[in-house]
Amino acid sequence: MQRKRKLGRGVAVVGAGMSKFGMYKDKDSKDLFVEAFSEMLSSVDKGADPNDIDALYLGNFTNDFWVHSAHWGPVISDLVGLIPKPATRTEGACAASALAFREGVFAIASGFYDVVLVSGVEEMSKRPTEEVAEGLAMATSSYEAEVGFTFPGVFGAVATAYFEKYGATREHLMNVTIKSHNNARLNPKAQFNLSIRDTMNSKIARAEKKGEPVPTWRDEKEFLRDPKANPVVAWPMHLYDCCPISDGAACMLLVAEEIAKNFTDNPLYVVGIGQGSGRALHAADDNTYFEATRYAAKEAYEMSGLKPEDIQFAEVHDCFSIAEIIHLEDLGFFKPGEGYKAVEEGLTRLDGPKPINTSGGLKCKGHPVGATGVSQLFEVWKQLRGEAGERQVPIKNLRIGAAHNLGGTGGTCSLTILERR
Amino acid sequence: MQRKRKLGRGVAVVGAGMSKFGMYKDKDSKDLFVEAFSEMLSSVDKGADPNDIDALYLGNFTNDFWVHSAHWGPVISDLVGLIPKPATRTEGACAASALAFREGVFAIASGFYDVVLVSGVEEMSKRPTEEVAEGLAMATSSYEAEVGFTFPGVFGAVATAYFEKYGATREHLMNVTIKSHNNARLNPKAQFNLSIRDTMNSKIARAEKKGEPVPTWRDEKEFLRDPKANPVVAWPMHLYDCCPISDGAACMLLVAEEIAKNFTDNPLYVVGIGQGSGRALHAADDNTYFEATRYAAKEAYEMSGLKPEDIQFAEVHDCFSIAEIIHLEDLGFFKPGEGYKAVEEGLTRLDGPKPINTSGGLKCKGHPVGATGVSQLFEVWKQLRGEAGERQVPIKNLRIGAAHNLGGTGGTCSLTILERR
Repeated sequence: MQRKRKLGRGVAVVGAGMSKFGMYKDKDSKDLFVEAFSEMLSSVDKGADPNDIDALYLGNFTNDFWVHSAHWGPVISDLVGLIPKPATRTEGACAASALAFREGVFAIASGFYDVVLVSGVEEMSKRPTEEVAEGLAMATSSYEAEVGFTFPGVFGAVATAYFEKYGATREHLMNVTIKSHNNARLNPKAQFNLSIRDTMNSKIARAEKKGEPVPTWRDEKEFLRDPKANPVVAWPMHLYDCCPISDGAACMLLVAEEIAKNFTDNPLYVVGIGQGSGRALHAADDNTYFEATRYAAKEAYEMSGLKPEDIQFAEVHDCFSIAEIIHLEDLGFFKPGEGYKAVEEGLTRLDGPKPINTSGGLKCKGHPVGATGVSQLFEVWKQLRGEAGERQVPIKNLRIGAAHNLGGTGGTCSLTILERR
Repeated sequence: MQRKRKLGRGVAVVGAGMSKFGMYKDKDSKDLFVEAFSEMLSSVDKGADPNDIDALYLGNFTNDFWVHSAHWGPVISDLVGLIPKPATRTEGACAASALAFREGVFAIASGFYDVVLVSGVEEMSKRPTEEVAEGLAMATSSYEAEVGFTFPGVFGAVATAYFEKYGATREHLMNVTIKSHNNARLNPKAQFNLSIRDTMNSKIARAEKKGEPVPTWRDEKEFLRDPKANPVVAWPMHLYDCCPISDGAACMLLVAEEIAKNFTDNPLYVVGIGQGSGRALHAADDNTYFEATRYAAKEAYEMSGLKPEDIQFAEVHDCFSIAEIIHLEDLGFFKPGEGYKAVEEGLTRLDGPKPINTSGGLKCKGHPVGATGVSQLFEVWKQLRGEAGERQVPIKNLRIGAAHNLGGTGGTCSLTILERR
């Protein structure tokens, strides 16, 4: 990097909304987008007039493949009454809407626009599972897909490399899963808003009711070790290590810093943005870190002048349990090889010193890929504004939160840091 | 629009390259991208170090559908050695790379980056024609595709509406085709670099050689009227009214204005950018204009302080002959209903007062959809730098040129104005 990254004009977030994530038979991505957009509008404390929106950015991975319809910028623009304002789609696989957020920041910081809607949407669940997997495989590097790698396989290989290098085991991954479910239990927007213990208990109750043999799991780990309850997908990735197939949408309203107070007395400021790219698995010198995450973090920390220890809580891209552990290290929250220990010690729990994925993460909140980036920032918004309800981070003077989004198998990563002042 | 659009920091173009457009059996989009990138690098008068590039923007319509591989930002980034720098794909159907250019401008104008590669690529010709058409149909509004409209059908309907309202006929469309071919004849990068007269003569020579009945066309219009030579596709769109299926790539190097002279003594300055969105055909109140083009033009003229008459020449999105005529009007070059007369009078010829599509346009240069936007700006670059060879616009003191790009059936449009100082 040649010089310190900075923006010539500050940008603030003044509204945010998201649909509940899930698998919908009766709602398509337009329905879900309107849900997110409406919530975003009503979240603006002093009100916002849609006519004041200068431009739209839409993150979407592949409506081309899954919905058989492309060019959705103007489709969404028309849906929420923004025509003839410009609409730009960004794509970076599962990081699509983090890129939309970033382009919205640039568009305002450039001085060109004052008010920009950034958003993401994806509709996955109506396709047969094999088509969902086929579509997702297109987001791996072309080399990985060519040799038959799909996502669980890639992250299984990454986990194996990590285990080998640092001595972690499958038991450590379970700590991530248990924590994610505990957080999601408190998030009404989450696709799976129940804990592993809830899941265990409901399975036990069902067996008892049906007169079937009653499982004898004594705790969450016993449940997760049971190959019937938690079958292997691609070793060591088991069912409960993997995020689900989801539909959903998320929206945020960005405005120039100098007009933020016209919209709310409690805006959040965009203090750090970073993005990086990574090579395919076969070309990486070491598969226990993501170079794209490290680069994104470097950009965002440089711009903000903040250090990893200044980030009070974060959403990180846990498409698989191992990913969360590695990103904790790549973002500098813990040293390489120590992420899994930190999770084990409870440091990343909701009531720990560095809460991670308070929303439940991709694993439990759901992962409608094009919507994930903005939905992560929605969680940061809720937490920093003290509106996270039962899952509110109990740290006093909560001021700085971040969201890390990953696309593909590390091809595109971003880090966005928001601050309450 | 609330206020005059402006950028807080100026942006300049210091290099440009494009592959020859065509239908390639032996080259894929990676080969073509490297061709464009290499030419771009060698076009930088004082040299550019790829290590100085801060970020990449890539316009691509649907590798998802045509190449069955998505998430091409990092694929291209890796190809030209830019990893771990950020790579962002933009999509707005056939305007995908005009959007990449614009995001590159915002990224620099925001103050965040100094040197950005903007680019576009598309590979279409290796798919069966019906799959190419199926992919393109995804770029219409979802409503149009649902009722079976494909692109020639939509633009045929637009032409019919225009004929009805303004009294133009098919003969007027032929003037566009003849002009485009005359220009492309002088462009070695064009897919069809021969005039209609060349085509006629070669068909006559072939018939003579084979001892077949020799056609008796006396001029280009007789050739174009002959349903054997120029069959109907969707009335009044005939074969020679339609752009071809193409493969190709294009690149430009953008830098902050204050460092432009480090790269060349002859940079071009980005003085106007504009973008708009449009409704589907069924929702438009009048199908003889494109609201997205008008909005894009308004933004770009406002920013630049220029009027339509200040634009000395332009590339406009002639996916079909009728589109060129309508855009001439929407961009304000001629009054509504007078575009077809202007073409007939020769005003848009290479040696006329307002040369249009000196490259040969999409019709003859080719239209690898994701690459078109930047390739149009490549032509503006060549002309403004006096490097257009045989097709150099003969206007003295050529200083201001523009490129207009359209996505889908008018869903996304952009206007970009460059100036030599």
